[in-house]
Amino acid sequence: MAKYTIGLDYGTLSVRALVVDAADGRELAVAEYEYPHAVMSESLPNGRRLPPDYALQHPQDYLEGLSVTVRRAVKDSGVDLTDIVGIGIDFTSNSYLPVDADFYPLCLKKEWENDPHAWVKIWKHHGTQSYAEKMEAKAVERGESFLKRYGGKVSPAWMFPRLYETAVEDPELYDAAAKFIEAGDWMVWQLCGQEKRSLSMAGYKAFWSKKDGYPSEDFLKSLCPKLEHVVDEKLSRDVCQLGTKAGELNKRGVELTGLPEGIAVAVANIDAHVSMPPMGLTDSGNLLMILGTSTCHVMLGSEEKEVPGVGGIVEDGVIPGTIGYESGQNCVGDSLKWFVDNCMPGAYERAAEAAGMTKNQYLTSLAEKLRPGQSGLLALDWWNGNRSILCDYDLTGMMVGMTIATKPEEIYRALIEATAYGTRRIVDSFEENGLPVKNVVACGGISKKNPMFMQIYADVLNREIRIARSSQTPALGSAIFAACAAGAENGGYDSVVEASHAMGGTSDTVYHPIRENVEIYDELYAEFLKLHDYFGRGENNVMKRIRKFR
Amino acid sequence: MAKYTIGLDYGTLSVRALVVDAADGRELAVAEYEYPHAVMSESLPNGRRLPPDYALQHPQDYLEGLSVTVRRAVKDSGVDLTDIVGIGIDFTSNSYLPVDADFYPLCLKKEWENDPHAWVKIWKHHGTQSYAEKMEAKAVERGESFLKRYGGKVSPAWMFPRLYETAVEDPELYDAAAKFIEAGDWMVWQLCGQEKRSLSMAGYKAFWSKKDGYPSEDFLKSLCPKLEHVVDEKLSRDVCQLGTKAGELNKRGVELTGLPEGIAVAVANIDAHVSMPPMGLTDSGNLLMILGTSTCHVMLGSEEKEVPGVGGIVEDGVIPGTIGYESGQNCVGDSLKWFVDNCMPGAYERAAEAAGMTKNQYLTSLAEKLRPGQSGLLALDWWNGNRSILCDYDLTGMMVGMTIATKPEEIYRALIEATAYGTRRIVDSFEENGLPVKNVVACGGISKKNPMFMQIYADVLNREIRIARSSQTPALGSAIFAACAAGAENGGYDSVVEASHAMGGTSDTVYHPIRENVEIYDELYAEFLKLHDYFGRGENNVMKRIRKFR
Repeated sequence: MAKYTIGLDYGTLSVRALVVDAADGRELAVAEYEYPHAVMSESLPNGRRLPPDYALQHPQDYLEGLSVTVRRAVKDSGVDLTDIVGIGIDFTSNSYLPVDADFYPLCLKKEWENDPHAWVKIWKHHGTQSYAEKMEAKAVERGESFLKRYGGKVSPAWMFPRLYETAVEDPELYDAAAKFIEAGDWMVWQLCGQEKRSLSMAGYKAFWSKKDGYPSEDFLKSLCPKLEHVVDEKLSRDVCQLGTKAGELNKRGVELTGLPEGIAVAVANIDAHVSMPPMGLTDSGNLLMILGTSTCHVMLGSEEKEVPGVGGIVEDGVIPGTIGYESGQNCVGDSLKWFVDNCMPGAYERAAEAAGMTKNQYLTSLAEKLRPGQSGLLALDWWNGNRSILCDYDLTGMMVGMTIATKPEEIYRALIEATAYGTRRIVDSFEENGLPVKNVVACGGISKKNPMFMQIYADVLNREIRIARSSQTPALGSAIFAACAAGAENGGYDSVVEASHAMGGTSDTVYHPIRENVEIYDELYAEFLKLHDYFGRGENNVMKRIRKFR
Repeated sequence: MAKYTIGLDYGTLSVRALVVDAADGRELAVAEYEYPHAVMSESLPNGRRLPPDYALQHPQDYLEGLSVTVRRAVKDSGVDLTDIVGIGIDFTSNSYLPVDADFYPLCLKKEWENDPHAWVKIWKHHGTQSYAEKMEAKAVERGESFLKRYGGKVSPAWMFPRLYETAVEDPELYDAAAKFIEAGDWMVWQLCGQEKRSLSMAGYKAFWSKKDGYPSEDFLKSLCPKLEHVVDEKLSRDVCQLGTKAGELNKRGVELTGLPEGIAVAVANIDAHVSMPPMGLTDSGNLLMILGTSTCHVMLGSEEKEVPGVGGIVEDGVIPGTIGYESGQNCVGDSLKWFVDNCMPGAYERAAEAAGMTKNQYLTSLAEKLRPGQSGLLALDWWNGNRSILCDYDLTGMMVGMTIATKPEEIYRALIEATAYGTRRIVDSFEENGLPVKNVVACGGISKKNPMFMQIYADVLNREIRIARSSQTPALGSAIFAACAAGAENGGYDSVVEASHAMGGTSDTVYHPIRENVEIYDELYAEFLKLHDYFGRGENNVMKRIRKFR
């Protein structure tokens, strides 16, 4: 008798529910729900204006999204409710909210609705920059060992700088909050009434490690006295392994989802990291690129090594039994979107429309006719700074080689090539530091939609690249973890490795490097590296100096 | 009784005739004529295809342009024919054609009409590149002293590489040609039957100097035996001072123009260099920027100094009694045209149309609201290479500072700022090498049309900039030289200085540097210089290396 699991993927603007056959990962139905409040960056729901760099969300959107998508996907799948054995959730992270003792969000209470700090701060929220910098400086000063697992950096998008900010700037809210919790963990509580903190979220976003736990009370106190006992008072030390069961669907969970009481609820995961098991890959040496607005690189290793450009090293953080490394590039689809919005001439827009193509499709149709190097252009992909090798958000974009014969499609292709060089720099960094990259795979919208993009990556990396079989990779990942939570006795699996091999896999599409292209890109990559170091390592800090006039 | 002169300005696509009051330079009427054959770069008039990099013209267009514009301008001016005392011509240079002993163009003869080398090669014709390189190498090898007056470079746009090419590749045509002559000098012959070679054309385009004449027969022979006696056989050593009379209008000139027989015909001049006298400036220390597709810098000095970035140093070459220096930038209006054609988004095009503005006007309307440095962008203006300080056509454009917040008008302004930094580098080079720049003036379309552009230049140079009073600066210059050719006894002048002071002058518009802007641009210029030397002086030859893949 077939058994099924449900994976829920909470992204930045919408949530997807996917119903999956637990035997082989076959996808039966998917339903999507866009958050009515999307990302609130200018005002709160009541119209109150927000400061710059804010990015907040409304927790009610998550609950409604759950109800709508699960019911619709289950209905569309035609599966019998009694054959559903588990549910799993992944979420963008750090998405962080204060709740009361009953896990009710403070932002939904009348007395806090005007307080921006009471709402869910998502990864895009950068209002916390100064606290991240203070925390980093203090950690460096004290020689805190946790820092080296995070490339020596503290991101404003992580949990502790946000706690720090709230403790200092909004002490009343801080005191009123019984807990601060990741939205993914909060959704797990909604389903099963258990506060089981996700190991990946704690590990990648809150400096937790299996060996050392959270940063010490002494360090936290040195930031702000209020923070001394924050872990025990307002977080939780109950950090749970991925693929384990957080609990079983309770009455409230049944009300929300319409699923049978008692089915397994998996510990939450991060939307990027959850995407490795659906590729069917669980060994060290596998590198996954999640290609989207930005790129997240998730790499499996067997040992903990210090690798420049890595933004997080977490034991068991991706696949239990391996060390999960995270790196990334801030501007991939984003730079193409910038180009299409700001630099695509009217004549090209009209030609795209006449050809029934999107702007990106039209530019790609011209760019794919170009040979590597033909444009004579070379760029540094730092339109959003550099978050990997150089860990420097003050770096900016650079392009060289323009002439009056330069065409839009040449610039477009050069932007893509720049991101490929950036990825190669990251791959090289893994290898130079004792982590051989044996296999490169990709998922995310671009990997399915743009073969030219993927071929450029294969040529620049001089490696075969396989892409995801599923076009709902994170949701399938959550369904895989749901099957693990259910366990073999209920039609699921007893390990993430087994579940991944049974339910995951790559598509038949393989991008093979083309030798002539590889040779040209090798030379261009050498040029990229030279400029990367010139502009990025202090030889000429012009990018930083000219920023100050902005 | 008022006397009048006529100035003819032969540009790349059209000719203008201007009727001027010889007393004060007042402009009475102008007429323009577009060459029907424009620039022939793809095929000859009979449809025969041309090789790449060719740019040819049809000499009949010049004659028809003369007839049409002079008659129309004289008619519109209402002046009495008997009060016209002189006619002067300026021409783009080197515009070069082979003629028979009667000065009849070979290209107009049946037997040569299929031969591309028989037609007029204009400044844009770059089919001669390899001969220019060979000539330069030979001159360097032999230590030829003329080379140092030309920045150590031989341009494919000059007379001798073209003679060299014809002698080698088309020896029959070479032998058939009685003379090779500048189109400006050829037009003077049409008017007065005198072969009087222009000092500025010989000086700036054929390595002639007052002291040493043309390159030696020994050097010319070393290039190709046929060239040994080319000067005496096919050019002329009768190189004439600017402002002197080449001859008097003869029967043929009367037929062509309808003007009275016997009026003075001035020695021809180059369209850029002829523009200094109409500014009313004749002393050393004056720098004129002719702002257009490219910029030509004409500077007056009192001594001959070696100045890096100068493409020609000619005694009496601009104003008799001074040393005329020429420098320039290859890509000024051209880079803005490139931007408008290739990078202006559809939404901006529509907004420009809705506002009734040209694309350049619309971009300027947005860019002028930006503070210096606000864009965070910095560019090197080498979209067409660098023809001044670095004398290197293989250099390309560079821009740094882009983010996903970068807007089109910011890039547009950064391109303008880059050209201003390029000009400052040239001005600095004059001063560093003992030629103080006391006064900066500008003419050309951009100087009249774009106050933001001019203010940026005033701020970057930290100098007042005055602009031409006339909007027909070169034609007025030719009318001034016509008045000199006529002489004081006929209602003209006996010196270029007198004529210039009486007939020339700048407008009342003065661009004053704004202190806050100057301070910011000083810092940005320092950054420009650092990148200029890094990319331009061999520290990182990436521009050249990545070109080879094109």
